[in-house]
Amino acid sequence: MGESLTDVEFEAETTLPAPGGQRGAEPRRAAGAPERRGPIGTQQDGRPGPAEGHEAVMLLERARAEVDPVLRAALGSLPGPMRRIARYHFGWERADGTPDEGGSGKAIRPALVLAAAAALGGPEARAEAVRAAAAVELIHNFTLLHDDVMDRDAVRRHRPTAWTVFGDADAILAGDALQALALRLLAQDPHPAARVAAARLADCVVELCAGQHADTAMERRGAGEVTLDEVLAMAEAKTGALLGCACAIGGLYAGAGDADVAALDAFGREAGLAFQLIDDVIGIWGDPSRTGKPVGADLAARKKSLPVVAAFASGTAAAAELAELYARPREKEDLDHIALTVERAGGRDWAQGQAADRMARAMQQLARAVPDPEAAGGLLALAEFVTRRSS
Amino acid sequence: MGESLTDVEFEAETTLPAPGGQRGAEPRRAAGAPERRGPIGTQQDGRPGPAEGHEAVMLLERARAEVDPVLRAALGSLPGPMRRIARYHFGWERADGTPDEGGSGKAIRPALVLAAAAALGGPEARAEAVRAAAAVELIHNFTLLHDDVMDRDAVRRHRPTAWTVFGDADAILAGDALQALALRLLAQDPHPAARVAAARLADCVVELCAGQHADTAMERRGAGEVTLDEVLAMAEAKTGALLGCACAIGGLYAGAGDADVAALDAFGREAGLAFQLIDDVIGIWGDPSRTGKPVGADLAARKKSLPVVAAFASGTAAAAELAELYARPREKEDLDHIALTVERAGGRDWAQGQAADRMARAMQQLARAVPDPEAAGGLLALAEFVTRRSS
Repeated sequence: MGESLTDVEFEAETTLPAPGGQRGAEPRRAAGAPERRGPIGTQQDGRPGPAEGHEAVMLLERARAEVDPVLRAALGSLPGPMRRIARYHFGWERADGTPDEGGSGKAIRPALVLAAAAALGGPEARAEAVRAAAAVELIHNFTLLHDDVMDRDAVRRHRPTAWTVFGDADAILAGDALQALALRLLAQDPHPAARVAAARLADCVVELCAGQHADTAMERRGAGEVTLDEVLAMAEAKTGALLGCACAIGGLYAGAGDADVAALDAFGREAGLAFQLIDDVIGIWGDPSRTGKPVGADLAARKKSLPVVAAFASGTAAAAELAELYARPREKEDLDHIALTVERAGGRDWAQGQAADRMARAMQQLARAVPDPEAAGGLLALAEFVTRRSS
Repeated sequence: MGESLTDVEFEAETTLPAPGGQRGAEPRRAAGAPERRGPIGTQQDGRPGPAEGHEAVMLLERARAEVDPVLRAALGSLPGPMRRIARYHFGWERADGTPDEGGSGKAIRPALVLAAAAALGGPEARAEAVRAAAAVELIHNFTLLHDDVMDRDAVRRHRPTAWTVFGDADAILAGDALQALALRLLAQDPHPAARVAAARLADCVVELCAGQHADTAMERRGAGEVTLDEVLAMAEAKTGALLGCACAIGGLYAGAGDADVAALDAFGREAGLAFQLIDDVIGIWGDPSRTGKPVGADLAARKKSLPVVAAFASGTAAAAELAELYARPREKEDLDHIALTVERAGGRDWAQGQAADRMARAMQQLARAVPDPEAAGGLLALAEFVTRRSS
């Protein structure tokens, strides 16, 4: 499971549907409407619906444009060698120090901070939350730098990971420095919410660490020895926690009360889990021409992804067969056959049902925090964007 | 140089001289008196003078007693696995999770925070700075956990390092969590100085990272290729920065102005450099029965310690001989002969002179920040404690 959870990069389709495309603009559902379950991870054309997709892409682009100057200034304050590693990681420089235009990720987390601030505090709160949004993005990238070292992942955002270029020590140090920069940004932010946001972000770091620990610890166990509860808890800590924290911090900058902040946090967590479930489904049954990974790469790596653990836990005849397939030497494996067995054991249906369920819960939490559907639109669009993928 | 700088654990002699010992109680010099140069690293009996030594030991013990409950509460808030690794690192638990009484270090940095707060703000400021003192100690320990992974150091405080027990990933994660705990402590501190202290501590983390980067980068170069300026700058970043930050934060909690805070920072930095110089002298010429290391361990490891780099840079005939000795295969080396050659090239004298010089500068900065010698006594005692060692 390591990579898909570790990345938590949303490589979703950002191409906008052509004007006048096949699907008419669906009326946007009010936040909190759990009926829209069908499309999660199952839509036929692999594209977001025009309305939501368009809005999400605009929100992401705007967030990236607003947060980038803060990030560049923060990284620019680093001493030379740390700056170089960090800029490389963000895709702004090549290994030789020349400028690069590599993508630095989809800015999902900053977009969630800003959308949550806007939802409860309007444009003013949104503008005031830009620094906090950058802090969240720095924390995300600090964990990516460290996770790549631990997981020995060699590629991130289609480029060699920092540790493969600069070595383990420098990748660890650059990650350490990014965590410090994130908390310095909040310490220097005069906004009254900055202190509480900093404490919340620090708590989230601890949870991210615990999630990564659980992930690496699970790698050493057999897929049949891991319970669904364990793997769900790990996914929540590794993926859900920071999405939840991003939404909560946006709420704090809008002056939201404790209950609304908690609901925003829960919204982000549930949407994060839905994302992870879909990401794991794609990791097994996705189209290799779109995922950029060979068929069944997650299965070949024996990742304890959520559908696989669910299949093992199903108690079916297919589960017993799966255990046998996993016990065989890897050279002889038939990945298509393993994928089919996971499916027959119910792993795929379970994951898609769970994802739909999590998104329904996310919508309920969103409706609690932001009862006005118009105001909730941005957060809704972002949540649907990250979960309505088929590639 | 890795280990002595990385540790920055002050394994100084804490045994108090017997009552009625050989040396009479010297009258304490006023802060800012640079005349007391002789004893730095050269005293005959290897013990601190009764007055300073006694006061420093009391200050360290009191700091440890006050900070420990905050540290234990902070670590207690970690999720299970992270908590276990952190407690092991602090010497509070064995690898099997049973309680241990291992030392968790001398608490020099927390003692400096508290002494600086007391010097400029009296007992009230001192009491208010306990949380900040714990935050500084958490940062120190986060860097130790990470540095040990990078430097592959296997022993710390006479115990196996965390990575040797729990693996690299968990040691990195526990370090990440300690950094987050440190900045959370300050984010949750209602004291008006907490925000500025947090920003300063975050800046210090960046400097510590840059120092560790410089240290690991130097390991890959020959001793003759490293300049004295480089190695001094590295030592200041790795060792001086956090001692300076500790003093500065204490000043901030006492409500000190910018100039006094800057002078306290400079005091801690200079004292830290003096410490490092003495530590490097001890690493070559120290008594193995007291250092716990074999004779010439730093030379055998070809560490680019300050006296060695000074010897290489001396342009003497001995420097040329040293270069020859370093180029030979290590099996044939005569460590006593190398030590003598470093000494003949002036490395030992240079280091001791530099240490005295740095302590003189430290005293000047201290006199600037704390003109009242009585009030400056605690900081003076701590600075002398860490530099007046011969073991």
